[in-house]
Amino acid sequence: MIGAAALAKRLETLAPIGRGPLGTTRLAWTGEDAATGEWFREQAAGAGLRVERDPAGNLWAVPGTPPPWWAAGSHLDSVREGGSYDGALGVVAAFEVAARAPVAVISFADEEGARFNTPTFGSRALTGVLDLSVLDRVDREGVRLADAMRAAGVDPAGIGTAPDWLPRLRGFVEPHIDQTTELERAGLPAGVVSGLASRMRLRAEIEGRADHSGTTPPADRRDALAAAARLIVAALDRSGDGLVATASRIEVQPNALTTVPAHASVWLDARSPDAERVDAWRAELEELDVGLPVALALESRSPGCEFDAGLRSRLVALSEEMGARAPEMDCYAGHDAGLIAARLPAAMVLVRNETGVSHSPSEHVELEDAAFGAELVLRLMEELAE
Amino acid sequence: MIGAAALAKRLETLAPIGRGPLGTTRLAWTGEDAATGEWFREQAAGAGLRVERDPAGNLWAVPGTPPPWWAAGSHLDSVREGGSYDGALGVVAAFEVAARAPVAVISFADEEGARFNTPTFGSRALTGVLDLSVLDRVDREGVRLADAMRAAGVDPAGIGTAPDWLPRLRGFVEPHIDQTTELERAGLPAGVVSGLASRMRLRAEIEGRADHSGTTPPADRRDALAAAARLIVAALDRSGDGLVATASRIEVQPNALTTVPAHASVWLDARSPDAERVDAWRAELEELDVGLPVALALESRSPGCEFDAGLRSRLVALSEEMGARAPEMDCYAGHDAGLIAARLPAAMVLVRNETGVSHSPSEHVELEDAAFGAELVLRLMEELAE
Repeated sequence: MIGAAALAKRLETLAPIGRGPLGTTRLAWTGEDAATGEWFREQAAGAGLRVERDPAGNLWAVPGTPPPWWAAGSHLDSVREGGSYDGALGVVAAFEVAARAPVAVISFADEEGARFNTPTFGSRALTGVLDLSVLDRVDREGVRLADAMRAAGVDPAGIGTAPDWLPRLRGFVEPHIDQTTELERAGLPAGVVSGLASRMRLRAEIEGRADHSGTTPPADRRDALAAAARLIVAALDRSGDGLVATASRIEVQPNALTTVPAHASVWLDARSPDAERVDAWRAELEELDVGLPVALALESRSPGCEFDAGLRSRLVALSEEMGARAPEMDCYAGHDAGLIAARLPAAMVLVRNETGVSHSPSEHVELEDAAFGAELVLRLMEELAE
Repeated sequence: MIGAAALAKRLETLAPIGRGPLGTTRLAWTGEDAATGEWFREQAAGAGLRVERDPAGNLWAVPGTPPPWWAAGSHLDSVREGGSYDGALGVVAAFEVAARAPVAVISFADEEGARFNTPTFGSRALTGVLDLSVLDRVDREGVRLADAMRAAGVDPAGIGTAPDWLPRLRGFVEPHIDQTTELERAGLPAGVVSGLASRMRLRAEIEGRADHSGTTPPADRRDALAAAARLIVAALDRSGDGLVATASRIEVQPNALTTVPAHASVWLDARSPDAERVDAWRAELEELDVGLPVALALESRSPGCEFDAGLRSRLVALSEEMGARAPEMDCYAGHDAGLIAARLPAAMVLVRNETGVSHSPSEHVELEDAAFGAELVLRLMEELAE
């Protein structure tokens, strides 16, 4: 049985990397990211696994047995000021599994996409669905993604060859913290994800005009923040009926006390198990009148996925044998396992998070629950190896 | 007659200071501010005036005659990425007047308040109504106002003695660009301000919670940007009937793509000739339900003013003699003349601005109109000297 103490030890050595007063920040292709790579190599060495880095920057810790392998894992990057478990728990659990069964551990590169708005970068590259134009994107400091990769030791010119690595895998299972209170409310340690919601990210650009904030009559204004606020309210008011919308980021120019805002950029996100609902949401925003023209650019689109039915039913059955039958759950987040699912058998196991919060230091798991989830994945792997 | 060429020459030497690709930025107590002070000294020397700096940092160019003097002027600081005329035109015109009549020229310190949110800082200090607690405010870089003043050569400890300088003045006339299209539409070069609108600035602080932007159910969210957007829409929708409201600035934390916004700060502004309308606007916002608690702090409040009736009627009569009778106009901006008006006779002359825009590089005056406005002030000063 995988124990809580072993998981705790691995988590403790990882936790200091990128930890600040407001949370954990490990953005892709940074020094913190490199430090998690070092941690990954140490864990692999301890478990007798060989480390390889694929052309997308994904880290693989592979067993001595010949490929293809079943793999477990998740990611080690984080959002800005995130928590200690999102992604990290999956990699930690995978090392416990790989210490007991001939499976590979994968830590996917840039899963959060928090630096370049490129979520599930590594698993997209591995499955051949990464839009390579993202390599030209720049972060807040003006650094190009391609240059950031190169500085982190990954040649961006080779990224198109990443799919050559996919045949090394038989399938993939991702343990992850629950990002809702569903398991907490059900009083259960783990759940099995049925599928991932369809997701869309839009960037709205609104061009107004800088005017004096007191003297310009309301009718003469081209107020970009006023239009942005109306757009945000409209986008959120179209939530419901399975669709979840968010406005997570806004940038206003000149953002000065005495000037009518001249420009606003707003990032909007919508998710639903029903992909058509997401398209309808976008179409409604395109038709909206918020007082100024809004240019809505599609930043990313994911069709969602359904996980492998065989793996799901085995996981549910095994959890029942372990004394706590895992419920099947919809998931509104994007995950690397969702990309793999389009090409190979894949599954996800969620671990109870009493706050239901993620992407924040308030995310929390009890180590006993994490051990339950890891053991569940281990038993699946043992069954698959038979 | 004051000519357009003389005004143009003074403006040309001033224009390069703080000029950038997106406009002119001369924030208070900075190097650009100091450079305008040097320009002021050169203009004064050319006009045979003596320069003094009062304990609030206001620059005075005074004639050889004994005080009290009539004075003209405005300010040389700007908003971020502003234009070439707001404030500057008044000082330039005042030097033309002072070259021909024994009047003082004043350039008030930090009129825009764009750095520390301290509008009409210098004229408030001179008239004894500056809230000295603002000296502890910090700018975006964390610099305290008191330290910025000291670095600019003004001892903040002495600011309480600024009102001792007020008896040196008999009254004040401020030439300024029109910040509306009223004069343009009327086809007139200049107007006379009847009074300034009552103004209020509020800072709204909204505390939410960082959650995953996809997985947290809408009902469980504490989304600070969602609440901020609803507050902005509500504040703006209460414009009209003489009240003009603006949301000019917003700051969101963590402002990251994958996290529900945890904190938002919004700066709101309302103005009306009717002070009670402004108070009612604030009271309505206090009662509003935007989904999260909103802490509304009063950042500044100005009761507005009515300018000296005698000066106004003299200006209107003189403009008629000059062939273009100046209309009396309400003004929604704050101005140093409004502070002086509470203590001494004061007036404002507006100069036609074909765009009606200010606080932006699009603000514009024809130099012939500026010369008309300066000549009008000169004739008033000559009459007052009789």
